[in-house]
Amino acid sequence: MSDLWQGINKIEYVGNKGDVKSGLGFQYYNPEEVILGKKMKDWLRFSVAYWHTFDQRLVDPFGDGTAIRPFDGKYSDPMDLALAKVDYAFEFYQKLGVNFLAFHDRDLAPEGDTLRETNKNLDKVVDKIVEYQKDTGMKVLWNTSSLFTNPRFVSGAATSPYADIYAYSAAQLKHSLEIGKRVGSENYVFWGGREGYESLWNTDMKREQEHIAKFFHMAKDYANEIGFDAQMLLEPKPKEPTTHQYDFDAATTIAFMKEYDLDKDFKLNLEGNHANLAGHTYQHEVRVARDAGLLGSLDANQGDKLIGWDIDEYPSNLYETTAVMTEVINNGGIGPRGGLNFDSKPRRTSFEPEDLFYGHIVGMDSFAAGLRVAAAMKEDGYLDDLVANRYASYNEGIGAKIESGEADFKSLEEYALDIPQKDLLAATHSDHLEQVKDTINHYIVRTLAK
Amino acid sequence: MSDLWQGINKIEYVGNKGDVKSGLGFQYYNPEEVILGKKMKDWLRFSVAYWHTFDQRLVDPFGDGTAIRPFDGKYSDPMDLALAKVDYAFEFYQKLGVNFLAFHDRDLAPEGDTLRETNKNLDKVVDKIVEYQKDTGMKVLWNTSSLFTNPRFVSGAATSPYADIYAYSAAQLKHSLEIGKRVGSENYVFWGGREGYESLWNTDMKREQEHIAKFFHMAKDYANEIGFDAQMLLEPKPKEPTTHQYDFDAATTIAFMKEYDLDKDFKLNLEGNHANLAGHTYQHEVRVARDAGLLGSLDANQGDKLIGWDIDEYPSNLYETTAVMTEVINNGGIGPRGGLNFDSKPRRTSFEPEDLFYGHIVGMDSFAAGLRVAAAMKEDGYLDDLVANRYASYNEGIGAKIESGEADFKSLEEYALDIPQKDLLAATHSDHLEQVKDTINHYIVRTLAK
Amino acid sequence: MSDLWQGINKIEYVGNKGDVKSGLGFQYYNPEEVILGKKMKDWLRFSVAYWHTFDQRLVDPFGDGTAIRPFDGKYSDPMDLALAKVDYAFEFYQKLGVNFLAFHDRDLAPEGDTLRETNKNLDKVVDKIVEYQKDTGMKVLWNTSSLFTNPRFVSGAATSPYADIYAYSAAQLKHSLEIGKRVGSENYVFWGGREGYESLWNTDMKREQEHIAKFFHMAKDYANEIGFDAQMLLEPKPKEPTTHQYDFDAATTIAFMKEYDLDKDFKLNLEGNHANLAGHTYQHEVRVARDAGLLGSLDANQGDKLIGWDIDEYPSNLYETTAVMTEVINNGGIGPRGGLNFDSKPRRTSFEPEDLFYGHIVGMDSFAAGLRVAAAMKEDGYLDDLVANRYASYNEGIGAKIESGEADFKSLEEYALDIPQKDLLAATHSDHLEQVKDTINHYIVRTLAK
Amino acid sequence: MSDLWQGINKIEYVGNKGDVKSGLGFQYYNPEEVILGKKMKDWLRFSVAYWHTFDQRLVDPFGDGTAIRPFDGKYSDPMDLALAKVDYAFEFYQKLGVNFLAFHDRDLAPEGDTLRETNKNLDKVVDKIVEYQKDTGMKVLWNTSSLFTNPRFVSGAATSPYADIYAYSAAQLKHSLEIGKRVGSENYVFWGGREGYESLWNTDMKREQEHIAKFFHMAKDYANEIGFDAQMLLEPKPKEPTTHQYDFDAATTIAFMKEYDLDKDFKLNLEGNHANLAGHTYQHEVRVARDAGLLGSLDANQGDKLIGWDIDEYPSNLYETTAVMTEVINNGGIGPRGGLNFDSKPRRTSFEPEDLFYGHIVGMDSFAAGLRVAAAMKEDGYLDDLVANRYASYNEGIGAKIESGEADFKSLEEYALDIPQKDLLAATHSDHLEQVKDTINHYIVRTLAK
Ligand SMILES: [Co+2]
Ligand SMILES: [Co+2]
Ligand SMILES: [Co+2]
Ligand SMILES: [Co+2]
Ligand SMILES: [Co+2]
Ligand SMILES: [Co+2]
Ligand SMILES: [Co+2]
Ligand SMILES: [Co+2]
Repeated sequence: MSDLWQGINKIEYVGNKGDVKSGLGFQYYNPEEVILGKKMKDWLRFSVAYWHTFDQRLVDPFGDGTAIRPFDGKYSDPMDLALAKVDYAFEFYQKLGVNFLAFHDRDLAPEGDTLRETNKNLDKVVDKIVEYQKDTGMKVLWNTSSLFTNPRFVSGAATSPYADIYAYSAAQLKHSLEIGKRVGSENYVFWGGREGYESLWNTDMKREQEHIAKFFHMAKDYANEIGFDAQMLLEPKPKEPTTHQYDFDAATTIAFMKEYDLDKDFKLNLEGNHANLAGHTYQHEVRVARDAGLLGSLDANQGDKLIGWDIDEYPSNLYETTAVMTEVINNGGIGPRGGLNFDSKPRRTSFEPEDLFYGHIVGMDSFAAGLRVAAAMKEDGYLDDLVANRYASYNEGIGAKIESGEADFKSLEEYALDIPQKDLLAATHSDHLEQVKDTINHYIVRTLAK
Repeated sequence: MSDLWQGINKIEYVGNKGDVKSGLGFQYYNPEEVILGKKMKDWLRFSVAYWHTFDQRLVDPFGDGTAIRPFDGKYSDPMDLALAKVDYAFEFYQKLGVNFLAFHDRDLAPEGDTLRETNKNLDKVVDKIVEYQKDTGMKVLWNTSSLFTNPRFVSGAATSPYADIYAYSAAQLKHSLEIGKRVGSENYVFWGGREGYESLWNTDMKREQEHIAKFFHMAKDYANEIGFDAQMLLEPKPKEPTTHQYDFDAATTIAFMKEYDLDKDFKLNLEGNHANLAGHTYQHEVRVARDAGLLGSLDANQGDKLIGWDIDEYPSNLYETTAVMTEVINNGGIGPRGGLNFDSKPRRTSFEPEDLFYGHIVGMDSFAAGLRVAAAMKEDGYLDDLVANRYASYNEGIGAKIESGEADFKSLEEYALDIPQKDLLAATHSDHLEQVKDTINHYIVRTLAK
Repeated sequence: MSDLWQGINKIEYVGNKGDVKSGLGFQYYNPEEVILGKKMKDWLRFSVAYWHTFDQRLVDPFGDGTAIRPFDGKYSDPMDLALAKVDYAFEFYQKLGVNFLAFHDRDLAPEGDTLRETNKNLDKVVDKIVEYQKDTGMKVLWNTSSLFTNPRFVSGAATSPYADIYAYSAAQLKHSLEIGKRVGSENYVFWGGREGYESLWNTDMKREQEHIAKFFHMAKDYANEIGFDAQMLLEPKPKEPTTHQYDFDAATTIAFMKEYDLDKDFKLNLEGNHANLAGHTYQHEVRVARDAGLLGSLDANQGDKLIGWDIDEYPSNLYETTAVMTEVINNGGIGPRGGLNFDSKPRRTSFEPEDLFYGHIVGMDSFAAGLRVAAAMKEDGYLDDLVANRYASYNEGIGAKIESGEADFKSLEEYALDIPQKDLLAATHSDHLEQVKDTINHYIVRTLAK
Repeated sequence: MSDLWQGINKIEYVGNKGDVKSGLGFQYYNPEEVILGKKMKDWLRFSVAYWHTFDQRLVDPFGDGTAIRPFDGKYSDPMDLALAKVDYAFEFYQKLGVNFLAFHDRDLAPEGDTLRETNKNLDKVVDKIVEYQKDTGMKVLWNTSSLFTNPRFVSGAATSPYADIYAYSAAQLKHSLEIGKRVGSENYVFWGGREGYESLWNTDMKREQEHIAKFFHMAKDYANEIGFDAQMLLEPKPKEPTTHQYDFDAATTIAFMKEYDLDKDFKLNLEGNHANLAGHTYQHEVRVARDAGLLGSLDANQGDKLIGWDIDEYPSNLYETTAVMTEVINNGGIGPRGGLNFDSKPRRTSFEPEDLFYGHIVGMDSFAAGLRVAAAMKEDGYLDDLVANRYASYNEGIGAKIESGEADFKSLEEYALDIPQKDLLAATHSDHLEQVKDTINHYIVRTLAK
């Protein structure tokens, strides 16, 4: 095998007994190990994001890119670079030991002056990816289309006030679906990077939402027409880059899907940092989607709740990964075709090639750790019992009548009208949340030390 | 007439030519003046909140109440005080010149040991209110039930894990609906003060939401049964007092209503401060509700976006009132039976009786001002033209085909495949937002100076 | 010994091998165990807060108290209750195994109509505390004075615009200092609960700050006069209850101390939740104070960064306790006389007496765990080496000249004027932050599993 | 005169009687009009920011630049473009009618491979600016140096852990000071774009702060040496781009200045959006600086308090401009050499050349309006009386003794010990804040309508 990422060998599971200092090995992620009846790799279905890993230069609004990448300076022609990156990417996947990738159309190849030329560029790179897939068995967790970077999308794509831009977006998306079919994407993601508003003064929100709903229906229709059967996913995010993004959070997106009859054909792709920006925990967003039967896939990253924008940090917080994996286990998996895609990038100060490996290692190990801890609590029935006991009063008596629909306001008044205050208080119970949090600390430490 | 609020005469419209210093008169609110074909009082339908005006002691988590009220120290028996407050309230309404009031059941009378006793207390006060209504024509904009203050609701009411508490809540609510019928409430509001979770670890969110959905259906059924035809409203609020409140914002509440088939019988009551706590502007929340056909009524107050909790300040920001009234005018009114209820209280440092009048004056005048400014922009067609022009490309050609459903991805690709980049850019237009904001400043100044 | 807290035995160190579910024992806190040359109890110096533990009813702005306490309903006279609580308190300390308490004057006894009467009430309770101290050896980590709860402090105490209130505050504080001397407080804390502004329009901030600076000087002078040699501490907090609190954060308070010549006699008491409300991590605040030589003591609690007010949760986040204890170890201790005072309360849903124990257990164990992890990293030199290597270029050559003051802009220009860009980039290094975060996860798990 | 900005004539004062829709004229800014004894232009000293006006392409982290500028595509050589921009800039100043500009070194000319080459490029552009200054009388409000954009500054400049970068930064700054002298800058600004930390785990904050303090001293020394007598200013900003910026806010920066003996030679440059990001109002930051005698200059812009990053919007909120100008009037001016520099840019959707004019017009008119309103309140003594009355109790009696230093805790106890509670309450007064806010609304409308 080639050695484009020099100095990096295949990242292996080394277990948690070696060096405490993080090295180029997994301490918790053991892909073939079976947890709760399923291999770790099948619970987690890790995916590498093309944009953050191979394109991201680590710029920020106040600074130029700091990234050092092994292909820097080797190619002057953008198409040559685009094609070469595919080699780097597939070696990266192989060394890291992941089975899935994810990409935007614009990650792969440069644009031409017309969409026809742009598509031509893209197709060449996709041809090469398809070849690699045949050789390696790599799968695409999802692909997507960038309908936000180019200035033509300044006021939106499928919510653009300008019909030509809408038409162009549809055409671009059409080709992206065709590519999805070619690479066999398990999912297709829509993140509406410009689908929102800068100001309500000049925005016809309803008309824009009708437009984009139509757009999603057309997308699904066309996917059906070409036999592209990926799970279709909307990815919520609240306030960046537009002042208000329509798909603010899971609940908002669900309201939209229901209003426009999209909830049968679309599910959700949820990201931790986006949850925080909307004022929620990641676990909350996953729970909302799960309860609605709309959990599709997960973007694995973490935010900094003191920072007001999307930092897309590799996940390292074991509380968050434990919480999310608890939801996943209770869901029986992320979703039929979902996975954990690292929508994550190194800090701008962490700019060497090997940091791309360290970033994915901390992310994969943190989610593997979360899976182990959540599974331990599941096996003990710890949280399940906690919840079951808490709601036990609905399993019989008046509670059962409430749930069955036998009760109405009159029968409930009859039941409650003369209960004295002290009996009402006695019907409530402390939830001992401090004890719960302490116990979760114990589960983390003990499970991971095993 | 009595003079319980001493030193206060009837607040009259004095116009904007007198003293620049705010006094006990309206400078912008002229109830009988016709604006865009409707009297100001009919656009605005101001309501006084019983809790903030007559019960609120101006406590905060670090300090005891500072309020000085004219009935302080005059009554030792709680029922005597409760009955006396009705006199104070109706004189207040008359002096302020409002036509609507709003109240929780628990605002009016103290609880007894059982609900039966509690209801008895309440009925006495309601009897007196009904008498006053006959004499004065005062209407109830809405009533509601406090299912959050008493410790029995520690873990929720209709989402309580304890079936007895659920039953009690239903019984309490039943009586509150009966009272609504007696006082002829135009609306009935549900704010789920404890309907949310402290921690997801021990919460079965789905089961709780199924319970509360059933609760709302039972409430509507019972209201129908007794012929109480008020508009039913849910009031969203995101994070207080529980860590996560289920009715986070308008969109979240709409998703819930759609999921549980409540969107036919329920609408929304929206509050400015709650909007901010959810990360939105007040205008945004109103727009979301309006677009969904679910705008029911408005709680008039303002928050401080640098402060992380509900401060319920009387509205004074003319940008916000102009924005909200623009939505209201475009909606043809707040809603068939909605109004502007001051869910607002004085600052803790503003503790004298007359501050209750000054607070309502700034609030009423600020919304009256917002109405005037919004109406001026409407009459000029300023914002309407801005929006209409912005989306004009959808009125013909490819845009019209998109809206009519004639277009699909294939026809749109055909249209767009060979458009060069410069033509795409030319299809977009600057929105000149800086000019728009400057113009709004001019509208505010000139309209209000007239 | 008495058994006022029934069902609770002395909380002992049971180690981390027993039940994973949290029980009434410490798994990490082993008071006599020596870590880095000092006993755990001497590193940590845990203190129980009187207000949260014995007075707090678990109210919130939307709900009455839910707390169940063993002394409820046993005493009708407030002084009897106040005196009885001392018995409960000292049994609590003994059962929990802490050596320090902390209190406000108003925690202990009810107010009278005049300060003279108030002081009389207070003195009786203090007499009893002093007796208990003799018997038990319990120490007071700090005492303080509530200059914020009573309505007289509506606009501040030492920053009140009303001179009588200032005078009263001084008088109240005087007695609080006398009590500090009687109980032998190691520290004396000032938290200015109303020292800030509601609005700048009516506030002379400079005059108010001059007043309070004078107040602090008078306090120190009087303490000196009576031979009360406690370390004097200011506790920063940003936005609650006033819109802006003057002691916003550590840095702001330091600026104030320097401006008014208070930095010799006063240090800082820092709280985790307050750090978050100011937009900082707890570690940040501790570092700022430490770097300024002004770290005095710590209020142990945690916030929820998605919640905009002070929730005063018992600490359970091992990342935060590890970070803070890293600072403490690098500081050689919290401060000469500092400790970890639990300015923490149970959730409102966690309302039983034993939850007060569980809360302290999770807090004490979490800080003990943080100490263990920080000590392990210290012993390995992990973080010390990381930092030392990062700044190594200042130990010789041009870096050494910069630090010594030999360099100036001219010599530095001479040095740098012709360095090519690639050499400049080569002088910078990746900080491998992802690897660092992964390593910290390993330290937590491995150290605590030992 | 040339016509590089086609279609734009000189922006004149047209007054507030013409078209309500904002056009290319000032409605409130009348430069020669005398307000409170000083010309408007001398109160306001408006400055145009080179970076936002001539360099900014309106990129954001998710999108490429949308800006259309009259010099686009005309120059292929970067130096030719750099030189041409000077012509565009000076015509812009002339058409807009401002007397001041502001710039970073890197705004003006491209970098070379070494600093020597970079300086050479820069000097050529500065030569041209100096020529223009001679012809036009334009002054430089301030210049500054970009020590943050280039990847070499990835971990800071004067706080870089890498001594070579520090040396380079000093050399770059040296030349920037020399340029300041050549163009006669009234002020010199330091914004430490990378002076902060990404993580505390690897940061020696104290060593970094000692380094940068030395840097500031060297800068001042060198400025003195070359006779560059500009006022030196530090510009606070809290969290962007690094996780924590050292100069978090005014108070933090003041603490730093005092610690390192910089408060004699340095003052503050304060920006509205930065205030909000730190959790403050703009007025607050100005007040803090003013009270400390450290108000130097102002960056005029506004943020969106619901958005978590620096949006640098042109100011349009009349409440904020009124508040800031109230502080300025009370300060007797912004500062001896300060001005209002528009650190503001158009929204990304507002991308045409004329939007640069509309943006400055709304900004200049909003501050001119704020000046007019603040002056009206000043002339009436409205706020002055409000404040004076509020603190009147310190002008005599016990209050005067407190202020004079005659009082101590013992004399104050004697004064207060027997005051009954009701007298204490009577010593406090409502601040009628609702009335105050209403009055400010009246002042805005009436003053601006005149
Ligand atoms: Co993201
Ligand atoms: Co994502
Ligand atoms: Co509210
Ligand atoms: Co409300
Ligand atoms: Co606190
Ligand atoms: Co504290
Ligand atoms: Co800025
Ligand atoms: Co600035």
